[in-house]
Amino acid sequence: MKLYDMRVAPNPRRVRIFIAEKGLDVPRVEINIRAGENLEPAFLAINPRGLLPTLELEDGTVIDETTAICRYFEGLHPEPPLLGTTPLEQAMVECWNRRIEFDAGQPVIDAFRNSYPPYAERAIPGRSGTAAIPGLVERGRARLADFYPAIDRRLGESEYVAGGHFSLADITLLCIVDFAVAVKLPAPEGCAHFARWHAQVSARPSAQA
Amino acid sequence: MKLYDMRVAPNPRRVRIFIAEKGLDVPRVEINIRAGENLEPAFLAINPRGLLPTLELEDGTVIDETTAICRYFEGLHPEPPLLGTTPLEQAMVECWNRRIEFDAGQPVIDAFRNSYPPYAERAIPGRSGTAAIPGLVERGRARLADFYPAIDRRLGESEYVAGGHFSLADITLLCIVDFAVAVKLPAPEGCAHFARWHAQVSARPSAQA
Repeated sequence: MKLYDMRVAPNPRRVRIFIAEKGLDVPRVEINIRAGENLEPAFLAINPRGLLPTLELEDGTVIDETTAICRYFEGLHPEPPLLGTTPLEQAMVECWNRRIEFDAGQPVIDAFRNSYPPYAERAIPGRSGTAAIPGLVERGRARLADFYPAIDRRLGESEYVAGGHFSLADITLLCIVDFAVAVKLPAPEGCAHFARWHAQVSARPSAQA
Repeated sequence: MKLYDMRVAPNPRRVRIFIAEKGLDVPRVEINIRAGENLEPAFLAINPRGLLPTLELEDGTVIDETTAICRYFEGLHPEPPLLGTTPLEQAMVECWNRRIEFDAGQPVIDAFRNSYPPYAERAIPGRSGTAAIPGLVERGRARLADFYPAIDRRLGESEYVAGGHFSLADITLLCIVDFAVAVKLPAPEGCAHFARWHAQVSARPSAQA
């Protein structure tokens, strides 16, 4: 088994943290997206979609979606559960994970990939020849501005994103907001509940993965 | 339990088909997105994100992401399984479902919502005041043009999208491609495997749901 990874990208980090929480160790191969290694023939022969993270199994099976890789490890190593245990918990972890992807992840990626000069012709991950659209930068910022107060309210009523237990939804939020800081889209001042949660999950050893 | 639904929208249809495959019957409330009912105070009081489908449980819990609603029903009613049974099957259903959402669903929605006049200021589902960006129409069409031959190849080697069993990945693909036809973005001529698959899944009684 092999994990094609990139140190500074948010989705690969989600998988690394998930694996660390499970106490697993998976061999990693670093692929430099910024340098375009994910679009070179050698990597496209493994994953024609050119996306990271990519998990390659011994028989050559490729799993190239973050949450699908996490679900695979959850099935093989159920403890500690990171995708919920009861049907309602499982639904709420999935729901919060999706909410964060749609309300925060897509806006951050839109704002970043449509303004970062090296991606001027690579605005869509895994794809060459897609020109940046400057209007998506403002759209992304506006959506993100609405997201932070909403997640701050949520974290004022709940210890973790999806309820009383640490889950993939926390991992997703942590990776997106830390990436947002790196690309100069930090949370506004005054989100005290969000700050409490951020300090708490950042202190877990897995956050260094 | 109540499902807030819209007859002609692709994501609510995914849930209706999923429920029909399970042999369940859930009371529906029709919300007209085109007329903006999802952005009116009455609906926002139920779901502040303004999105459909929304499942409201007896205790007021709201699940407002399509795949999370499906996962809830899968947990309560495991038969027939639509999200896979082994860890690898579960990962591959999730992986194909996500691939289709990203490679086809997002392009179709981008192309539609940024060109349909009633959504000129509602380019993002569930949100008011987001202006259309015409450049996303061309971007969506280009991505979709790459998707159809890729899924045609896949359906030449596999009976269903994620393997030998009908799953949520088939439901997602069916709802997206039927919606694409409705908004004048049909598959190109000559995708014979895709056409075989489309006839096969459209013949299931659930496709009428």
